[in-house]
Amino acid sequence: MNAALRAVVLAADHYQIEVVAFRHGYKGLLENESVVLRPHDVLHILQHSGTVIKSARCQRFKTIEAAQQASSVLDENNIQALVVIGGDGSFRGAHHLAQHWHGQIIGIPGTIDNDLYGTDATIGFATAVNIAMDALDKIRDTADAMDRVFIVEVMGRDAGFIGLSSAMAAGAERMILPELQRDKPLTIAALVKHIERVQKVRGEGSYVMVLSEHQWPGGAVALAEQLEAEYHLPCRPCLLGHIQRGGAPAPADRILGAQMGVHAVELIRSGATEVMTGIRGQENVAVPIVDTWQKKHPLDPNLLRIQHEIFNPVKKSQRNH
Amino acid sequence: MNAALRAVVLAADHYQIEVVAFRHGYKGLLENESVVLRPHDVLHILQHSGTVIKSARCQRFKTIEAAQQASSVLDENNIQALVVIGGDGSFRGAHHLAQHWHGQIIGIPGTIDNDLYGTDATIGFATAVNIAMDALDKIRDTADAMDRVFIVEVMGRDAGFIGLSSAMAAGAERMILPELQRDKPLTIAALVKHIERVQKVRGEGSYVMVLSEHQWPGGAVALAEQLEAEYHLPCRPCLLGHIQRGGAPAPADRILGAQMGVHAVELIRSGATEVMTGIRGQENVAVPIVDTWQKKHPLDPNLLRIQHEIFNPVKKSQRNH
Amino acid sequence: MNAALRAVVLAADHYQIEVVAFRHGYKGLLENESVVLRPHDVLHILQHSGTVIKSARCQRFKTIEAAQQASSVLDENNIQALVVIGGDGSFRGAHHLAQHWHGQIIGIPGTIDNDLYGTDATIGFATAVNIAMDALDKIRDTADAMDRVFIVEVMGRDAGFIGLSSAMAAGAERMILPELQRDKPLTIAALVKHIERVQKVRGEGSYVMVLSEHQWPGGAVALAEQLEAEYHLPCRPCLLGHIQRGGAPAPADRILGAQMGVHAVELIRSGATEVMTGIRGQENVAVPIVDTWQKKHPLDPNLLRIQHEIFNPVKKSQRNH
Amino acid sequence: MNAALRAVVLAADHYQIEVVAFRHGYKGLLENESVVLRPHDVLHILQHSGTVIKSARCQRFKTIEAAQQASSVLDENNIQALVVIGGDGSFRGAHHLAQHWHGQIIGIPGTIDNDLYGTDATIGFATAVNIAMDALDKIRDTADAMDRVFIVEVMGRDAGFIGLSSAMAAGAERMILPELQRDKPLTIAALVKHIERVQKVRGEGSYVMVLSEHQWPGGAVALAEQLEAEYHLPCRPCLLGHIQRGGAPAPADRILGAQMGVHAVELIRSGATEVMTGIRGQENVAVPIVDTWQKKHPLDPNLLRIQHEIFNPVKKSQRNH
Repeated sequence: MNAALRAVVLAADHYQIEVVAFRHGYKGLLENESVVLRPHDVLHILQHSGTVIKSARCQRFKTIEAAQQASSVLDENNIQALVVIGGDGSFRGAHHLAQHWHGQIIGIPGTIDNDLYGTDATIGFATAVNIAMDALDKIRDTADAMDRVFIVEVMGRDAGFIGLSSAMAAGAERMILPELQRDKPLTIAALVKHIERVQKVRGEGSYVMVLSEHQWPGGAVALAEQLEAEYHLPCRPCLLGHIQRGGAPAPADRILGAQMGVHAVELIRSGATEVMTGIRGQENVAVPIVDTWQKKHPLDPNLLRIQHEIFNPVKKSQRNH
Repeated sequence: MNAALRAVVLAADHYQIEVVAFRHGYKGLLENESVVLRPHDVLHILQHSGTVIKSARCQRFKTIEAAQQASSVLDENNIQALVVIGGDGSFRGAHHLAQHWHGQIIGIPGTIDNDLYGTDATIGFATAVNIAMDALDKIRDTADAMDRVFIVEVMGRDAGFIGLSSAMAAGAERMILPELQRDKPLTIAALVKHIERVQKVRGEGSYVMVLSEHQWPGGAVALAEQLEAEYHLPCRPCLLGHIQRGGAPAPADRILGAQMGVHAVELIRSGATEVMTGIRGQENVAVPIVDTWQKKHPLDPNLLRIQHEIFNPVKKSQRNH
Repeated sequence: MNAALRAVVLAADHYQIEVVAFRHGYKGLLENESVVLRPHDVLHILQHSGTVIKSARCQRFKTIEAAQQASSVLDENNIQALVVIGGDGSFRGAHHLAQHWHGQIIGIPGTIDNDLYGTDATIGFATAVNIAMDALDKIRDTADAMDRVFIVEVMGRDAGFIGLSSAMAAGAERMILPELQRDKPLTIAALVKHIERVQKVRGEGSYVMVLSEHQWPGGAVALAEQLEAEYHLPCRPCLLGHIQRGGAPAPADRILGAQMGVHAVELIRSGATEVMTGIRGQENVAVPIVDTWQKKHPLDPNLLRIQHEIFNPVKKSQRNH
Repeated sequence: MNAALRAVVLAADHYQIEVVAFRHGYKGLLENESVVLRPHDVLHILQHSGTVIKSARCQRFKTIEAAQQASSVLDENNIQALVVIGGDGSFRGAHHLAQHWHGQIIGIPGTIDNDLYGTDATIGFATAVNIAMDALDKIRDTADAMDRVFIVEVMGRDAGFIGLSSAMAAGAERMILPELQRDKPLTIAALVKHIERVQKVRGEGSYVMVLSEHQWPGGAVALAEQLEAEYHLPCRPCLLGHIQRGGAPAPADRILGAQMGVHAVELIRSGATEVMTGIRGQENVAVPIVDTWQKKHPLDPNLLRIQHEIFNPVKKSQRNH
């Protein structure tokens, strides 16, 4: 997100607009934790993950009183437009604030889950895929020598973007994603049958599986234990957790952050409000902010077809699932 | 490129098509270095750079005799369609062969330079940007403590894609790209003026510069020497060279390879010929292969504007260049 | 381990000794899966993890019959000396074989756990520490913004080398290692007290913890759940698992592999048997192979003191544990 | 170096000693750029390269006046002991200061070149080797497909530590180091003969070479041009430059930094002065600071023998050089 913050500050400077940031998100806004940001402050933050202005959750922001208080703080600071970088929670907050504040509000999609409608990609997604793929590569290195099943649990409880992209990038034999589970939840019997068929087709044993979080009770650890205990399949789990949120941001995220930060400032100049800047192909687009969570961002059906159908080692007719 | 090769083999297997590969490109084609590829042969090649079927230059392929000989070899092997993975040189070869062979020819864009018309991205480009950005990040780490100019020479003698994307991703103060040089070639006096103005605006000294190859006589080393000798600016060059072609492929390249490999097989099934598979936004498109080198793939004007204008530390009115 | 294999082959070639490798370890030895290795076969394997000659477990090797059969296979192949690369299990096998075979047996320590007596380091350890530290760094990136506890489970059920080195390298607030647990097993109440004291001393909340495997029932996932459920401490687990065995080997492992592979060949030439090549400081040493598992390799007491005492955010007098 | 700084601050805090840092090294000392450092200030600096207290060259420090002025500044700040982190230049400065100041002076070896006597390793060396090896790996990835010579220029004008370790770790065919050049400077004719012999022995063409800086007029770029122009050997240069000083520090450097920082504080407590903390095997040692530059730190003769003799693809009898 630092890339987007930097771009907002540099673009604002270019158009001679002053930038005030609030540390710790809405919590800091309520407490007027404001700080003026000039180009010099954001020059060399691109390499770092996380955000220099920190972040925080703020349950209280959902109340009318909080929105009114935020409105007062913004007015006291002479803010004319607010740029919100975040996911659907942040954007719901922005929409709530808009009912109580007269200024412009522009969203920049900053979430690793890529689950916002109206944009091909969100800032942080490419980096998370990079990290998940790297973990899968490392496991593949050792998996090949052993007849074992490996389960890597990745983020994305509601959307399988990280799961699908990392599984495809690393050539996983299987992925368990929310979108696939909704259609037809996996049974362990069907999974074991798939593993056995893959091992038969391949004539060898390593089977690497990507599991989106919250798709199996107890996650990768529990699923691995079940496969070992009930089916005598040697199985090793990995749980990436917050590793996926760190690390040097991928180039795609930094370039996206640059484009979106500049676009956000230009949207302000155009008078827009309650829109999120999105990317479609190589074009910047403005998306009504309520659409971003009310409409569904589907997985790319072509990628899903390729990884789940065409690259599936077991043919459709032979599969249970 | 392994990702594309793997995808071709897996998609062909899915559609029950047999795949024969020729090692060492056109050279191997002329010498009938053929090898049957089955899914098992390509399963775990995704992590590796380079290509398992090797590559080679083949000047001789430009002759009519060579194309006729290749045509015979293809017919002897009962090949009905040829998939060529490469850049404009490979595609010119494909077009040349098409004058002398009756089968279908499909191109897959595999070059780090991203200089082919008709596709947003080529396979290898994302990885090269990743590597260039990483080098720039490492330099920035130490540059900040010192009042010095750093010049990093990157690939792309005819097209500034790697230069532009890595400069933006790493927040370089300056980039020298073929596209910018064509408009108005840089003079060393103008460069020195820019350096001095940036240092003045910033109140500090580090200045990191991306230089596309062949844009300065003698490259980064010579330019650094000139800046030191003639202008007493302490300056350190780096020359990335073939480092940019190696390393574990980036997720974007692997996913692109998967899409394009599958699309190439589906183009064969549709009866197409002399087309390259390209990506536009998230759509696969078929591009006449002659267009890929005859038409120009321009830099994204919005990225160019952002990095060269909006993020330029020195305002337009103050610049010579 | 490829570095050691390569070094054995290159050194043997230098001294005009022929090398025959058995794929799949003792299992392959029993089944005579032999392959002649020449320099050309091992030139460019350094970058890759895993082992090109594969590995496998072989319970059966513990029997007298198996050792006798292995002895016959070695004699049929005219083998005069056997180099075994592995951990304590492999070395016990080597010792067992030595009771039934007349040839020389030399061990090379290849295990990520670094738990063999007689050598400062084993091949694979540096790479595993690298990977664990990188995961901890990524978590620290995001941890700083949040008042949370992060638990990263690393390998080393019997020895805390990976845990200690990665905790020190990444500046973890806490480590739970087998060696520390043996003295005084941790209670969850003492842990919670430490967390609270650290947060008090620091005035902020992130607390990153390294947990060696098998030191808590249910591992990092169960401990995180307990801390959340019983003590309302927001807590996120990571489980690195086999990620630690993959990835490009660290320079230290490659250089160690080179030294040990060459030393193993020179030990053969000196007539030694039933010894392991070890490193002490910068010297190669020969260690009786039975010592390697019968004697204990202790953690470096100075590193332990530094990380557990001097860098401990809570002073000894204030700690329960 | 941040690891060492952090360790000094944490160890000092442990022993209830107050730490004052001077930013920008001796330059900052003269200008009294002092800042009190507490544990909180250095907690999370381990991941970052460079130094948070910045560094700078200071020619003026060589004068008697400067040493006297520094002495006054130190006394004004009630400093009783000065810890200097740096290379031989910094240590010469420390020795110079010691003639004019009564306090204790302790050195911590912080230089990527590893060229100080009395310590097996200096902080920064492991990271530089890591980066050089990674570059060599990336080149090897693409080199294998092509009959070409690759020259990678690395740091170390006076000492070949980075060159030797990275060449061994990456399996380079050749290394040109100051230590080897002193014995018998390389001629281009001998180099060409070696390249041809390696290509003959190997039956293939890639030849990767590590060149320490300042060992060839014009460096890797000039040598590559000569090989192409005079001997028609296709050749590609890389020049790593300051890339080697950046990036996330390797675990070995961080652990070494921790050990040395703590040892430096304990040396202060023991009353020592004008010594550098060094590492020998796993022991911390105190080395008279004048020895560190007056005596020579030789390359490990065993590593040199392995890489230059045993792993040399061309046998001694067949070599000119």
